[in-house]
Amino acid sequence: MAESAFLGTSLGVVAPQRFVYADPFTLKCGEVLSGFDLMYETYGTLNASASNAILICHALSGHHHAAGLHSADDDKPGWWNHCIGRGKPIDTERFFVVALNNIGGCHGSTGPCSMKPDGSGMYGPTFPVVNVEDWVKSQARLADHLGIQRFAAVIGGSLGGMQALQWAMEFPDRVRSAVVIAAAPKLTAQNIAFNEIARHAITSDPQFANGHYRDSGVNPDVGLALARMIGHVTYLSASGMGKRFGRQIKSGDLRAGADVEFQVQSYLRYQGQTFSRQFDANTYVLMTRALDLFDPAAEFGDDLVAALSRATADFLVVSFTSDWRFPVERSEEIAHALLRSRKDVSHAIIESEHGHDSFLLPLPRYLDVLGTYLRRIHEEIHANAT
Amino acid sequence: MAESAFLGTSLGVVAPQRFVYADPFTLKCGEVLSGFDLMYETYGTLNASASNAILICHALSGHHHAAGLHSADDDKPGWWNHCIGRGKPIDTERFFVVALNNIGGCHGSTGPCSMKPDGSGMYGPTFPVVNVEDWVKSQARLADHLGIQRFAAVIGGSLGGMQALQWAMEFPDRVRSAVVIAAAPKLTAQNIAFNEIARHAITSDPQFANGHYRDSGVNPDVGLALARMIGHVTYLSASGMGKRFGRQIKSGDLRAGADVEFQVQSYLRYQGQTFSRQFDANTYVLMTRALDLFDPAAEFGDDLVAALSRATADFLVVSFTSDWRFPVERSEEIAHALLRSRKDVSHAIIESEHGHDSFLLPLPRYLDVLGTYLRRIHEEIHANAT
Repeated sequence: MAESAFLGTSLGVVAPQRFVYADPFTLKCGEVLSGFDLMYETYGTLNASASNAILICHALSGHHHAAGLHSADDDKPGWWNHCIGRGKPIDTERFFVVALNNIGGCHGSTGPCSMKPDGSGMYGPTFPVVNVEDWVKSQARLADHLGIQRFAAVIGGSLGGMQALQWAMEFPDRVRSAVVIAAAPKLTAQNIAFNEIARHAITSDPQFANGHYRDSGVNPDVGLALARMIGHVTYLSASGMGKRFGRQIKSGDLRAGADVEFQVQSYLRYQGQTFSRQFDANTYVLMTRALDLFDPAAEFGDDLVAALSRATADFLVVSFTSDWRFPVERSEEIAHALLRSRKDVSHAIIESEHGHDSFLLPLPRYLDVLGTYLRRIHEEIHANAT
Repeated sequence: MAESAFLGTSLGVVAPQRFVYADPFTLKCGEVLSGFDLMYETYGTLNASASNAILICHALSGHHHAAGLHSADDDKPGWWNHCIGRGKPIDTERFFVVALNNIGGCHGSTGPCSMKPDGSGMYGPTFPVVNVEDWVKSQARLADHLGIQRFAAVIGGSLGGMQALQWAMEFPDRVRSAVVIAAAPKLTAQNIAFNEIARHAITSDPQFANGHYRDSGVNPDVGLALARMIGHVTYLSASGMGKRFGRQIKSGDLRAGADVEFQVQSYLRYQGQTFSRQFDANTYVLMTRALDLFDPAAEFGDDLVAALSRATADFLVVSFTSDWRFPVERSEEIAHALLRSRKDVSHAIIESEHGHDSFLLPLPRYLDVLGTYLRRIHEEIHANAT
């Protein structure tokens, strides 16, 4: 791995790898994959006792490329590059970091864009329903492959935070600590409503072609762009948008009362268009469904405390004051249920006006909380080892 | 007018009327309408001095049919029927109430569905940009026609509240009191963003046909339904949706991790589909643009106090605690600017979990505040007359 710090990345050029799991894998919905591929990247070095591994779980539109560059002239580092690297909160001098693209994703792991094993073409919309539980189980297979019995930490934001929570419940022996950032124990009606509108925008685009758009040589660009625009507004806060865009005008004259284009309109359209060229529509539908379905308390009579009782990990819960998609109160639900379930839990509430997006941003106090927590975890590992 | 109370309406059957203004009418954007029609309804009796008239200004999707029934077997009274009638807050025993469909609307007033005067077909997307100022001026022409020099009150919620505010600034001599409900002095970036997404959903529907859908014999049902779904979620509150829908399931089994349909999904789709059959897409685009453009302080160097200084009316400002489209703070902006401009203003903050939609609902304290305020206005009119 290159030593020099390209564009602020201490990791230099990193190479994606492919994990091929060749055995049948039964999904929660009952369908069976004959196997699956997971694209992943690792940063840092696994120690001899394999006790310093950290798993990064991605959110709705994330992937395995969390840090570093893909080539020396790459101008865009991984999506959490400011958080992962030498001397960074997830410090690769101390930890061996694993990031992957989940099943159902569109960045090389088995998903709607994969070919069906029976040779009848691409899965497309026939790819089975995937649940957070499936992701966690498939990530455990990857951990087996990498020789990691127990993660020092499983970390994720938003949908990734749900995976971290699920890890702690599903594999208590394999998680020392779970870092659950800007997440919720289940979606509200409003959350589901926004997901439904996004899916409806995609599936009602004539170019969606019932999900067989690739067979038809088209792409539901319009629907996917709309879905992203809707999502994007819910990731930002009203006050943050106000400060960033306000009523700034891109073209036209407000006083003339004729057509005016506000900056925020042009920004949103650009966000939507860019996303629609980079992301798969069936994956978007699948990922938002997994969000809707996540509800670990459901099988415990809606008792989150009971659901969490299996966990043995320490928890760091992080939330952001202006996040209205998964507000501070949703993290409080998690933290309170963990406390009532007698777990070791800290809840850091970070002042931010960047809404849900905050979890992806280099906010000093957020990075400080994360770094401090992980240094403590590292010290404990070291103390236990000596 | 019928005396019996059909379905809780004290007004019985009411008849829409048409006001034809046949002179050129210059819009704020500079374009000139050769004339315009306004559909309107009236309830109650205008007194001899024409001092007891109230104007109701509608919001985005409203119209002239605010109260009563259109026939004896009509099962759906006007949109504000619980508020207007004998013994109701807007009491037709005391007041003569005028409700209209604004220019640009799709309920019979001159708008995108009207024929162009040059015989070249329907306006469609070529209908000029309409501003709140244009509506207020056209409403003043209707008032002239009805012999109303000065309204006892101009009342509106949301976009209608902006019209009430504009009336007080534009025609200070013609407004005794303005009731500004769930409104804002201008949209925020987030407000504009949601409008932009709704418009984008409509205009990118292939059946929108650049706004000429009626010529093509189609309708952008999908885009219009999406626009309504987006709008609808912003009219409700997260807590209200939680109590009404929560995670109730319409079909499927959550624990099976397969496809599940939540009640809120089916509700939203139904709302969208129903709306798309009843409302005109070009009107929706036009109305949301008018919302975006409203900014009375703009021509006063962004000084709302200066903009409001022209007004002489008394003001009642009403806001609702769970309204996140136009939160309480936006009404406070209006109320504070009015106070600083030395106006007589009351601001009633109504506890409600129904979000922005509250302004259309029969909430007891809201109706009480409105009724009490209007009784005081009526007493003042009576005192002045004797």
